[in-house]
Amino acid sequence: MSGQEKITRISGGVTAARGFEAGAAAAGIKYQGRDDMAVIYSEAPCRAAGTFTTNIVKAAPVKWDQKVVAESPYVQAVIVNSGIANACTGEEGYGYCRETAEETAKVFGVSEDAVLVASTGVIGMQLPMERLKRGVSLLKEAKGDSLENGTAAAKAIMTTDTVHKEIAVQVEIGGKTVTIGGMCKGSGMIHPNMCTMLSFVTTDANISKEMLQKCVSADVKDTYNMISVDGDTSTNDTLLVLANGLAGNPEITGEDEDYRAFAAALNEVNTYLAKKMAGDGEGATALFEVKIVGAESKEQAVTLSKSVVTSSLVKAAIYGHDANWGRILCAMGYSGAQFDPEKVDLFFESAAGRIQIIENGVAVDYSEEEATRILSEPEVTAIADVKMGTASATAWGCDLTYDYVKINADYRS
Amino acid sequence: MSGQEKITRISGGVTAARGFEAGAAAAGIKYQGRDDMAVIYSEAPCRAAGTFTTNIVKAAPVKWDQKVVAESPYVQAVIVNSGIANACTGEEGYGYCRETAEETAKVFGVSEDAVLVASTGVIGMQLPMERLKRGVSLLKEAKGDSLENGTAAAKAIMTTDTVHKEIAVQVEIGGKTVTIGGMCKGSGMIHPNMCTMLSFVTTDANISKEMLQKCVSADVKDTYNMISVDGDTSTNDTLLVLANGLAGNPEITGEDEDYRAFAAALNEVNTYLAKKMAGDGEGATALFEVKIVGAESKEQAVTLSKSVVTSSLVKAAIYGHDANWGRILCAMGYSGAQFDPEKVDLFFESAAGRIQIIENGVAVDYSEEEATRILSEPEVTAIADVKMGTASATAWGCDLTYDYVKINADYRS
Repeated sequence: MSGQEKITRISGGVTAARGFEAGAAAAGIKYQGRDDMAVIYSEAPCRAAGTFTTNIVKAAPVKWDQKVVAESPYVQAVIVNSGIANACTGEEGYGYCRETAEETAKVFGVSEDAVLVASTGVIGMQLPMERLKRGVSLLKEAKGDSLENGTAAAKAIMTTDTVHKEIAVQVEIGGKTVTIGGMCKGSGMIHPNMCTMLSFVTTDANISKEMLQKCVSADVKDTYNMISVDGDTSTNDTLLVLANGLAGNPEITGEDEDYRAFAAALNEVNTYLAKKMAGDGEGATALFEVKIVGAESKEQAVTLSKSVVTSSLVKAAIYGHDANWGRILCAMGYSGAQFDPEKVDLFFESAAGRIQIIENGVAVDYSEEEATRILSEPEVTAIADVKMGTASATAWGCDLTYDYVKINADYRS
Repeated sequence: MSGQEKITRISGGVTAARGFEAGAAAAGIKYQGRDDMAVIYSEAPCRAAGTFTTNIVKAAPVKWDQKVVAESPYVQAVIVNSGIANACTGEEGYGYCRETAEETAKVFGVSEDAVLVASTGVIGMQLPMERLKRGVSLLKEAKGDSLENGTAAAKAIMTTDTVHKEIAVQVEIGGKTVTIGGMCKGSGMIHPNMCTMLSFVTTDANISKEMLQKCVSADVKDTYNMISVDGDTSTNDTLLVLANGLAGNPEITGEDEDYRAFAAALNEVNTYLAKKMAGDGEGATALFEVKIVGAESKEQAVTLSKSVVTSSLVKAAIYGHDANWGRILCAMGYSGAQFDPEKVDLFFESAAGRIQIIENGVAVDYSEEEATRILSEPEVTAIADVKMGTASATAWGCDLTYDYVKINADYRS
């Protein structure tokens, strides 16, 4: 995807792009003594694109947003709460999405069908609408376009996250500087943590709605869809991208050079946010990256890399800094992809170095001490070469720890 | 499958059926100070049936046994070691299977192609053949037909198991008492613990090789294939069933009444062993049973029940005695099976009672305390009715605990 485009990392998140404001508020939806609602707002109307959970049990806000993204001509606000997921809440829950949009429309002076909503938290509980409506008014007061406003929003949407996650980049398109900023929370999309992945990207790029959706849909395959924390696909996973066009570049309407520049910058934002979620997987102590190279097709490489990054046994071994390569070969073996186990080469790599573990399916005479040293870093990569072709894929996950169990055994208490 | 057959549980395991001997020995393959090799031996030649891992990375003993079961006219001995899996060991590892069979043939006075071998333990290490051969001689001395010999063998094949697993039943077939006994170790088949599922069943039934394999292949779908500990399919999983015909019943050669009686008794043995493995999953504190009822097809019910029993988040909630029903609906939702989430009823059940949690996809007004009390038993069942038809399926697993992580982070150390 990336070509010659010069992409510059800048400070900030969702308020980095021109015309975007954000804010946070403590509405007491579930948490006490912390912000638990956030808004993203653009005075200028935005084209919106989105991708959503593939779970057939879809939370009410997912259904609402799917309709808004598909049918509304433009979007101006996103309202998020991080206490209650509003999933498995039936007609009543969907009604609350409409009420939230109505309230936001009234308070912010925008059209009801220009409001997106997102929720994360406990499944099955109904939203306390009085508190939520009060929260909308608080958000109106709190919003602003400073970097601090963006950071406050990124913090307000956290649940079991240990760090907030935001990024902004700039790229030149059609002689204009285009900014893309984003924030997210949670730990996955295809395989997300129940605490749900929510990701919000704002940009001042001028791009048609059709090309924006195309670019987003293509990019998630290499970013959010390649991370996994625990193999569970949430009911609420949502990625929303808003583009308000204020950068003033000529509108992107086809897959030309400008499109590729935008796509490269968007990919940088999404890759960063996706890896941040994987590395901040519940209880995780390490980001675990799995690269499959020498595959005969992209599809094969994706299947193999995801099978390894999802294996509980591999993840527990990473936690133990144990070069238990047999579990990696085993996870490749049950992935469903065909390959010859007796041709596989396997390497581990981190900031501490690189080591070959297997050659042609059999262990080489490697040093366990050296392997453990490499596996003791906070970011660890396993690279498997299946020697069938030139395709490759990279998946990201994390180790499996005591704390993952603790967090999820106690989550509702 | 089960009809009017009267199946009687008796004491013992693999030595319960006429003509079978077993034994254990401490060969020092990996463990010290405990038995780590076992033999099952029948003086009379046995018909053999088997099912094996579907992982394309297959351990050397799996390849050896597949050949023996397919090509040998009869079988007389099974040699097991529980220290080294002999997987990912290339030509050298396969040669060691042949050497083990040669040594067993010599020591026990049987044909080399009548010897099955099975291994469980660490992947990638080569077997210490001198110790293993000494072990074969020790097994010759140790074997006997007492129940204690059977139990010793069941203990010798354990790795991270916390209890040994054996069972024996009797059923009348063609006017003769037929005995079926079995032992197993490990925690899964489709989704087994890396420490591997090995299961061995012996019977004195007189049954053709064709009907024996047919009966075994059908039965694993409802037993071993319905358990999961961690979603990882081992390289070594093996079920072997040996029938020596000494009960003297008329040979079973078709799917008649005698076949059905045998199948029902075999199902009782396999169900017991499969559930024992699930409940003894690494680190588990509870056996977790998931029943899907009202499904439109068996396949749909299997897909849904397995998705729930495999979910890390559901398993962690069971460990926490938390009626987190949203995670169950969520796991059904991403299973790939189609259903209407807004029609689902969900119940929890255990020795402490039964409670309805969801009606038509929405929580009923249940008592969390009562639910926690029911979920605090050592055997817990979740029952979901999808109200589409009359098919059903039951899957078995276990909770996800700190100890699972501990065992698998430290396994090789």
